[in-house]
Amino acid sequence: MCELLGMSANVPTDICFSFTGLMQRGGHTGPHQDGWGIGIYEGRACRTFHDPHPSAWSEVAELIRNYAIKSENAIAHIRKANRGKVCLANTHPFTRELWGSHWLFAHNGQLRGIKQRPLRHYSRIGTTDSEHAFCWMMDRIRKRFPERPQNGTELIRYIYKLALELDKSGVFNFLLSDSVNLYAYCSTSLCWITRKHPFGEARLIDTGEVWDFSKLTTPKDIVTMIASRALTDNETWTQMEKGELLVFRKGIPVNGDW
Amino acid sequence: MCELLGMSANVPTDICFSFTGLMQRGGHTGPHQDGWGIGIYEGRACRTFHDPHPSAWSEVAELIRNYAIKSENAIAHIRKANRGKVCLANTHPFTRELWGSHWLFAHNGQLRGIKQRPLRHYSRIGTTDSEHAFCWMMDRIRKRFPERPQNGTELIRYIYKLALELDKSGVFNFLLSDSVNLYAYCSTSLCWITRKHPFGEARLIDTGEVWDFSKLTTPKDIVTMIASRALTDNETWTQMEKGELLVFRKGIPVNGDW
Repeated sequence: MCELLGMSANVPTDICFSFTGLMQRGGHTGPHQDGWGIGIYEGRACRTFHDPHPSAWSEVAELIRNYAIKSENAIAHIRKANRGKVCLANTHPFTRELWGSHWLFAHNGQLRGIKQRPLRHYSRIGTTDSEHAFCWMMDRIRKRFPERPQNGTELIRYIYKLALELDKSGVFNFLLSDSVNLYAYCSTSLCWITRKHPFGEARLIDTGEVWDFSKLTTPKDIVTMIASRALTDNETWTQMEKGELLVFRKGIPVNGDW
Repeated sequence: MCELLGMSANVPTDICFSFTGLMQRGGHTGPHQDGWGIGIYEGRACRTFHDPHPSAWSEVAELIRNYAIKSENAIAHIRKANRGKVCLANTHPFTRELWGSHWLFAHNGQLRGIKQRPLRHYSRIGTTDSEHAFCWMMDRIRKRFPERPQNGTELIRYIYKLALELDKSGVFNFLLSDSVNLYAYCSTSLCWITRKHPFGEARLIDTGEVWDFSKLTTPKDIVTMIASRALTDNETWTQMEKGELLVFRKGIPVNGDW
């Protein structure tokens, strides 16, 4: 299995604190040592960093921790391979372009028979069920919406429909972003927390490190983190329900009925 | 303007030496300080590193120099913005997926009126004429060859045709890779060098650094570097001719008539 981490914020924010905790689980406090990756948006473009080596000892991960790239949207993933060998092509998050935006996708779980679903516009580069599922969803979204729909709810509903359909084939926890929204679908396990004024201290489970966010933020900042398992032990993370889709924009859940 | 650097090798090779020279031109020995990027293949997938900051002082560039990722195919670019603002979305090399492979593209020059050419499957994320030209070429290649052609020469001929067509609109030096071949098109300025047995010493123009490749290679290794301007001053680089397309595979020029 794998672990996911996502961030949605209303101001450019670095993901260093949470990333530090997650990276420990890639070979040190957790078994997810078959590569890791992160995608960090700047507007409609995202830059990705991928490494097929364990994150706990990765020089690229060390750079991300120290370089503190700020973003309103980011998705990270550490991999414990179950389908597909350990190589760059199988390292999440995967990215494709649609409507002039990068889309990012990372998955935790397994999907039976997914590769029997034909792909049209987007093709798999690696051999994972995850990338196949992403390409299939992108194909469907592209077909249904040749251009970005004016009505954001329609898009969310459609993504939810696709998520529910694939979830029937196995375990399909995922994080997806179209550069504007961060979509978090819980098949078995995802939790989230929103940090906002008044900010307090947070302590990482995996390192014991404590950060005082009140010293790093302004009262207007809102930052939501989504993770496979809670990353801190002195804050209250909300478990998502099975079959639930949450959509975050600028750190805030998008309200709606889908 | 910008500067390009490409590598094609028959064994996984790191690009550190040449990259060290090129990066100096991004703000130190050259004016190309509006961002830089590199794409490094592993099979059909490539990982990219982009930074909208000057390469000469970039922490990400420092990582690439020290981490020594090995590859048979790589493309790097340092940018002096002339069209499009300085931001991540405008930072080369650009990447798209076709036939289950990442394609990489970096451009030096300017193209008039390119944005009037309609795009269909691939869209621009940033605002550069370069990315538009890449998307347009990808659209055309995809339409002409829905699947990777068995006959590689047909593909090369078609890419050459597209290159000549766009070259009429301005200056169009580019490096392109489909994960197998490295395509180098010279509109005004590109040069190349093949290093093979017996290897000797090479001295970087921009730093004076000397590497003795005979100590780092085996007699079977073949490595070709392509650059906008020679990177070493004690070796003979071959200037490409205007309107010439060279194609390299595993370090060796692909012979053919196109």
